[in-house]
Amino acid sequence: MAGTAGPEIERLIQLLARLPGLGPRSARRAALHLIKKREALMTPLAGALQVAIDRIQVCKVCSNIDTQNPCTICTDRRRDPSTIVVVADVADLWALERAHATTGKYHVLGATLSPLDGVGPQDLTIDALVSRAHDSEVSEIILALNATVDGQTTAHYITDLLQEANVKVTRLAHGVPVGGELDYLDEGTLSAAMRQRTLF
Amino acid sequence: MAGTAGPEIERLIQLLARLPGLGPRSARRAALHLIKKREALMTPLAGALQVAIDRIQVCKVCSNIDTQNPCTICTDRRRDPSTIVVVADVADLWALERAHATTGKYHVLGATLSPLDGVGPQDLTIDALVSRAHDSEVSEIILALNATVDGQTTAHYITDLLQEANVKVTRLAHGVPVGGELDYLDEGTLSAAMRQRTLF
Repeated sequence: MAGTAGPEIERLIQLLARLPGLGPRSARRAALHLIKKREALMTPLAGALQVAIDRIQVCKVCSNIDTQNPCTICTDRRRDPSTIVVVADVADLWALERAHATTGKYHVLGATLSPLDGVGPQDLTIDALVSRAHDSEVSEIILALNATVDGQTTAHYITDLLQEANVKVTRLAHGVPVGGELDYLDEGTLSAAMRQRTLF
Repeated sequence: MAGTAGPEIERLIQLLARLPGLGPRSARRAALHLIKKREALMTPLAGALQVAIDRIQVCKVCSNIDTQNPCTICTDRRRDPSTIVVVADVADLWALERAHATTGKYHVLGATLSPLDGVGPQDLTIDALVSRAHDSEVSEIILALNATVDGQTTAHYITDLLQEANVKVTRLAHGVPVGGELDYLDEGTLSAAMRQRTLF
């Protein structure tokens, strides 16, 4: 609490504390930092949030977020329309884009299936994906989902649904992370890396 | 980077990354979280920031921040005007208020002296403190500064300046933190706790 500083500051702290990565203490520090940097940071941040509120939309094709709809990637003629990379979240799309990992297009599911958390197929954009997969232009669906139980459950579920579509369904390779040390890797990853070894 | 999502999102991420406690990765997560919770979080946060920009001021008496000036504490007639608790930062004031540690008033220096960082006496509100200390109403100045080199340097500097004022200058006790285990405490703290032992 910063009760003596008035309800306005208290409210700002409470809202900041709801951001992932900020707890109550760091939210107080962030609020103070903002107040001290009123011109250099607080005012620009308030403006950037308002721009985001006004302009950011969910792409009606792939569920990416962007200020245009369909999004920049869906409308980019240089992207390969025959490949759709399926990701759980926009954060994963951003990660793949940072890695320049694909020239294909994307499909954002919005989450992974998680019966324990009550996330079922109806909560994901799976219908739209199946519909896109039946487009004759599409030849490969790459499932770029987390190598977790929920991620792999989702991958199997989608693979089953895509049996009738005339597409190749692939998934990311398992293996040793670049720069990784074998001694620190779990046995499952090491076995997979051995099975999926490639010619040197 | 989230380069494919347009410059608006990129700018939001860059501004969030300048908050203490958020790095580039957590700033991306925070931006995505805000965008997903547009109504529940992003819009209220933009509003709270605008209110803070419009209304928060630095108290002309004690340099606390508040939406009124002089601040709530300075104008509170229930607070003891004979005691001034000197803190480096508003965050320290908030911490003491959460602990209900004092019924006195405050004086916020804005920082501690730090020759290495180029923070000199002219960067702190020391002149205003000395002026307040000469008020006949004031009888005790409590230096609630960090037990660090910079904090203690600042405490010594202020104590020297207050020699001519008719006030008692005190500082916080050193000792064992409540709930703390002796085995984990440094020797300096243990020695101080022993020297400053109190009757049981």
